[in-house]
Amino acid sequence: MADKGQLQESIKAQGEVVRKLKEAKASKDQIVEEVAKLLELKAQLGTDDGKQMFALKTPKGTRDYNPKQMAIRESVFNTIISCFKRHGAETIDTPVFELKETLTGKYGEDSKLIYDLKDQGGELLSLRYDLTVPFARYLAMNKISNIKRYHIAKVYRRDNPAMTKGRYREFYQCDFDIAGQYDPMIPDAECIKVVHEILTELQLGDFRIKVNDRRILDGMFAVCGVPDDKFRAICSTVDKLDKASWEEVKNEMVGEKGLAPEAADRIGEYVRMHGGFDLAEKLLQDPQLSQNKHALEGLTDMKDLFKYLELFKITDKVIFDLSLARGLDYYTGVIYEAVLIRPQNVHPSEELVSVGSVAGGGRYDGLVGMFDHKGRKVPCVGVSVGIERVFSILEHKAEASEEKIRTTETQVLVASAQKNLLEERLKLTSELWDAGIKAEVLYKKNPKLLSQLQHCEETGIPLVAIIGEQELKEGVVKLRNVATREEVDVSRVTLVEEIKKRSIQS
Amino acid sequence: MADKGQLQESIKAQGEVVRKLKEAKASKDQIVEEVAKLLELKAQLGTDDGKQMFALKTPKGTRDYNPKQMAIRESVFNTIISCFKRHGAETIDTPVFELKETLTGKYGEDSKLIYDLKDQGGELLSLRYDLTVPFARYLAMNKISNIKRYHIAKVYRRDNPAMTKGRYREFYQCDFDIAGQYDPMIPDAECIKVVHEILTELQLGDFRIKVNDRRILDGMFAVCGVPDDKFRAICSTVDKLDKASWEEVKNEMVGEKGLAPEAADRIGEYVRMHGGFDLAEKLLQDPQLSQNKHALEGLTDMKDLFKYLELFKITDKVIFDLSLARGLDYYTGVIYEAVLIRPQNVHPSEELVSVGSVAGGGRYDGLVGMFDHKGRKVPCVGVSVGIERVFSILEHKAEASEEKIRTTETQVLVASAQKNLLEERLKLTSELWDAGIKAEVLYKKNPKLLSQLQHCEETGIPLVAIIGEQELKEGVVKLRNVATREEVDVSRVTLVEEIKKRSIQS
Repeated sequence: MADKGQLQESIKAQGEVVRKLKEAKASKDQIVEEVAKLLELKAQLGTDDGKQMFALKTPKGTRDYNPKQMAIRESVFNTIISCFKRHGAETIDTPVFELKETLTGKYGEDSKLIYDLKDQGGELLSLRYDLTVPFARYLAMNKISNIKRYHIAKVYRRDNPAMTKGRYREFYQCDFDIAGQYDPMIPDAECIKVVHEILTELQLGDFRIKVNDRRILDGMFAVCGVPDDKFRAICSTVDKLDKASWEEVKNEMVGEKGLAPEAADRIGEYVRMHGGFDLAEKLLQDPQLSQNKHALEGLTDMKDLFKYLELFKITDKVIFDLSLARGLDYYTGVIYEAVLIRPQNVHPSEELVSVGSVAGGGRYDGLVGMFDHKGRKVPCVGVSVGIERVFSILEHKAEASEEKIRTTETQVLVASAQKNLLEERLKLTSELWDAGIKAEVLYKKNPKLLSQLQHCEETGIPLVAIIGEQELKEGVVKLRNVATREEVDVSRVTLVEEIKKRSIQS
Repeated sequence: MADKGQLQESIKAQGEVVRKLKEAKASKDQIVEEVAKLLELKAQLGTDDGKQMFALKTPKGTRDYNPKQMAIRESVFNTIISCFKRHGAETIDTPVFELKETLTGKYGEDSKLIYDLKDQGGELLSLRYDLTVPFARYLAMNKISNIKRYHIAKVYRRDNPAMTKGRYREFYQCDFDIAGQYDPMIPDAECIKVVHEILTELQLGDFRIKVNDRRILDGMFAVCGVPDDKFRAICSTVDKLDKASWEEVKNEMVGEKGLAPEAADRIGEYVRMHGGFDLAEKLLQDPQLSQNKHALEGLTDMKDLFKYLELFKITDKVIFDLSLARGLDYYTGVIYEAVLIRPQNVHPSEELVSVGSVAGGGRYDGLVGMFDHKGRKVPCVGVSVGIERVFSILEHKAEASEEKIRTTETQVLVASAQKNLLEERLKLTSELWDAGIKAEVLYKKNPKLLSQLQHCEETGIPLVAIIGEQELKEGVVKLRNVATREEVDVSRVTLVEEIKKRSIQS
């Protein structure tokens, strides 16, 4: 822990940052982030009595979901799961941690981002980094040679978080994968169709799905004169093209990775190309590329892929893009990535929610074999939807709109205007619960009618079932519509039915 | 890693264990567990070429969920979530790990079971041990003074696993908690009602819910002559009464914990008592106990609790049991625990699935204050359903029954009897997807009709939409019912409607 004087200095400086941002009318997100830093510093300092020296926060790069955020999350998951089920997928789950060795050698340079558990005796464990490697481990361990499965779960990466952009250290992945030996590009096309359906249904604005193939990339590198042992390194550099300019990428290839400038220039010509079926046809005429076995296979398959995507009527959103490379080591064939290109934003005056890749995947035919003791291969292709960015966008949308999000589904509040009716309220509430009605009752012996009605207004409960001495005597309940304030006496015998009827209407 | 010779010795010995168990016709579960140990040893040894030295397994005390287990899990969660929502709860989520200091000092002796993350620079983190402490941290951090929330998530304990009994190191908790300053025992009674509803709906067999109160226990200890500073230690010992005999418990009190034998004997008289409202009344007549402020409060509240449970019509399953103590440090009032007493078992010849506590909870009025920098208190009461034991029971039931569990929801397979119709199959499948129909198609260019029908039989798909040259020409689809083998020609225009109609029927 830092020394107290130092901390106080830091707090002062940070307070100044926040003040200036406010003066400069900086974006809400930026201020929120800087205030969070300030609070963290203050928490480290603790209170004067030295009693509370702990930071009251979640770990760096993580967050809680409050009930409103959970309501958004559930609706997004419902959309995604419906799509996965529509495509006939079943689901599995795996532990949040794996043996460390299970993850070793699967992620290339990114391995440094894996969270390890402390060695407390016993096995060495790591938190899962994605859902693909655990899936491959599951297939090999259970000797499964074909399955179509989805898996929605949190994964962990010790990356630099940028929480306002939806980049966290703990985040959800929604994976859909098809394992099995099938005819080329049919499951691959279905994965792209799945991404298309999900992004359309989530209504996040316009999007494009870029596709490419590792075999085409490899063929291209060979043709351009990249030495075999530099393929992966150059591939990683090409992968930066979505964020960096060609000049920067070329500099890294030539400077850092030691590629000949002419080779880089030839790559530069290819990676500018994008199109569809036609581009694949054109490249098959390329005298050099078509001589390369890998490129030939990749391009032929690309033509088939676009043929199937045409049948699915989604080629208007799909681009064959030679600059798409994807970072992970394990891809062996087609790769793809979906990007939002024009996010819907309710308040155009606000800064744009920063967007980018929201889904990605590809074919990985070698991964399962790495786990099989006999090296048996199970070809796989899959897609992962990066849901945190989607949450960010939808949370911003919800905040900007006036619409109230309900966080409970309660149909009716059991209330009373008179005193000493707690027991009668509890009895009626219990009857409603037992009849399957979603009901609440205030936990007070003698709550005011006004505070009972206020609770309904605040939480969106549409109905109130009011009982008093008179109603009890007559065997009725006064059913009040919170929005219209209409009240009607309903026989206690038909109350459940009446509530159900009114719940469907609303 | 152990030396190769040692490992080979261990493997031999473990192989012997498995052989003997099989000879002795031991239970399937036991054999499975011992075989797993054997395989683990073999995996450690690796193959001869030294290429595959890793163990192909999940970490100790964890497991994967296959699609069938997931189907059971989802149905259990649906039951539980429906109940929580019926009671007006909203939901939140928190990260899987917390700052280490957040968990410090909350679990007493059990703190040694917490998983820590490796110090990789930055904050010191631990995996959550339960959902209650993160909930209290969440309330304090967000200054929330009342909420009714549920949270279903995995928690982590480095305990000795007993997986056939549903005791894991990674396991689900389903928590329902009510935070807020309310009139006594009303939310407490609702928590018990929630447990009652869930256990009834899950149809696990008969159960009982034991209740007690920490204030009654404290009063009882005081009256029996237990020194103040030994309350928690003696409480932990009393907690063992569900597994150990009174003699053993007394020995621990007198021997290990240094209690006077007479004090232990007086405790022994109390902890044998159980009943309901009447027992609370009787103990209020106890000249000594009624003089103790804590016991007086606890017993008076216990009478109210039973009054409310009577209104809920559930007193037949609830027992006021003075031997119930519960391990956790943070309880301050009522405590409860649900136990299955006669599990349903389809094959009575099989050994009984071992059962025990399936839910527990209580009141913890001081926990949130431990996180608040100003010590503000938020009274809380809640319950946690221990779902792994429930899964174990239901998985055994499913295994024992002949009933087939479907793991997908696919309504129709698009098939063809003729060759060269892949594109037509894909086109039709895509049309169905776009109309919201759950549809599959085999990923083969020319699959045999028989293998397409077999896929339906194996996975329970009820309908096949068959197209051939003739059907395409006529604009119809042959819709086949897999179970009855009936076939009918349906116009392509009305196909979606026809599938929907038949899906409701089935």
